Amino acid sequence: MNETRPLILVCNDDGYHAKGIQALAEVMKDFGQVLVVAPSEPQSGMGHAITINQPLRLQEIQAFGDLEAYSCSGTPVDCVKLAIYGILKRKPDLIVSGINHGANFSVNVLYSGTMSAAVEGALEGIPSIGFSLLDHSRDADFEASKSIVAKVVSKVLKHGITKNTCLNVNIPAISADRIQGIRICRQGVGHWEDEFIERQDPTGHPYFWMSGAFGEMDKAEDSDNWALRHDYVSIVPVQYDMTAHREIAKLKEWEL
Amino acid sequence: MNETRPLILVCNDDGYHAKGIQALAEVMKDFGQVLVVAPSEPQSGMGHAITINQPLRLQEIQAFGDLEAYSCSGTPVDCVKLAIYGILKRKPDLIVSGINHGANFSVNVLYSGTMSAAVEGALEGIPSIGFSLLDHSRDADFEASKSIVAKVVSKVLKHGITKNTCLNVNIPAISADRIQGIRICRQGVGHWEDEFIERQDPTGHPYFWMSGAFGEMDKAEDSDNWALRHDYVSIVPVQYDMTAHREIAKLKEWEL
Repeated sequence: MNETRPLILVCNDDGYHAKGIQALAEVMKDFGQVLVVAPSEPQSGMGHAITINQPLRLQEIQAFGDLEAYSCSGTPVDCVKLAIYGILKRKPDLIVSGINHGANFSVNVLYSGTMSAAVEGALEGIPSIGFSLLDHSRDADFEASKSIVAKVVSKVLKHGITKNTCLNVNIPAISADRIQGIRICRQGVGHWEDEFIERQDPTGHPYFWMSGAFGEMDKAEDSDNWALRHDYVSIVPVQYDMTAHREIAKLKEWEL
Repeated sequence: MNETRPLILVCNDDGYHAKGIQALAEVMKDFGQVLVVAPSEPQSGMGHAITINQPLRLQEIQAFGDLEAYSCSGTPVDCVKLAIYGILKRKPDLIVSGINHGANFSVNVLYSGTMSAAVEGALEGIPSIGFSLLDHSRDADFEASKSIVAKVVSKVLKHGITKNTCLNVNIPAISADRIQGIRICRQGVGHWEDEFIERQDPTGHPYFWMSGAFGEMDKAEDSDNWALRHDYVSIVPVQYDMTAHREIAKLKEWEL
């Protein structure tokens, strides 16, 4: 073990079995000492959830060859917390999350377990990056993504990231030669038009499947929506101050 | 049913059994037509999680007297989505979430199911408010909170809230006469120092309980931390653009 190499935590939300995290861990070997802590089961859409009322299980796994790796029964954010405070007892130098099977641009950053793991890293003051490929199929092709990951990670290790921010990287699902480049963007405007499909179980009781379509309403060239629609990789710098600062003065006029 | 009264959706993350949502629903009766959709089980710490890989169950319940009410098997955000797109098939005029048993100031807005329900309302363009009492005990006293809720709701119905923002209201756990007033604040700086308590199950396998203490690092008078420490109710206007706008120019210099 070379102690001068950066210590890199690899996690995701699709679970340790996913092709995306296998690709990510493989790329990260070139950059430092790797620890993988990933959910034992898929945890897509878990957002910033943490496990409060249940204990967590941690299992050492061999799924990543000679890399130290654990599966965790909890959420992506649990994985980050458990890695730092339970396994390492120190902060890693970098956290990478993904590569997600599916897009996490626009407001999807809120629902995404992949990105919440990166945001949790930012909360800890650790440079963190979430990677997502715009292909949610199980056997998605991560070949082009690997070179994007390597490019972004080498820049982050060189320049650092401003404390308490992280990066949201989305990659179009096309071959490397068709990718037009990498654009730094803001979170685009978008909205889920949800739909609930009602069915009945064999005993006649109803249940609902959440469905629906994502409406991309942002046509501006500085949005991540735009970049991805035009075959660019999008990178949005992300922070976690949710304050609507502009509203403060207005609310003060209410004289509550 | 008086159709000119505002339609108000009441939800929470502690589950429909909780004292806090009972108190909230009771106050809301004075303001409009109320629909309650709340989790069937406690969903604290679920953040912005949604249920993707499982169907959702919805059950009409009588727990709120003559109010129309449902329990939902999913997360707080699922409750909001199901209420809008599954039950109402229209947007309510107001969403109120809580009253949470426990604090949701500072960065806890990220982990809070209570606040994520309000943020989901903001995503839908619906005026939304999350209420939390700084007492996580099951039998917390919500009497003082009720008058705060009524005050804030009446102002919101009068003035409206800027589209795509919501309010994060935290209430100190003291009697009404000791509350110093209401302060409009920004999200304070804070950080969880997590700790994992390791135990062994009867078969000798380890499991971990997440524990730890919240470090309030913000001493500034405009933070919600400060307000609550000084016996004020804090109101933070919340938005969901996570972009670290100031970082965009810096990242562009990386020439990726």
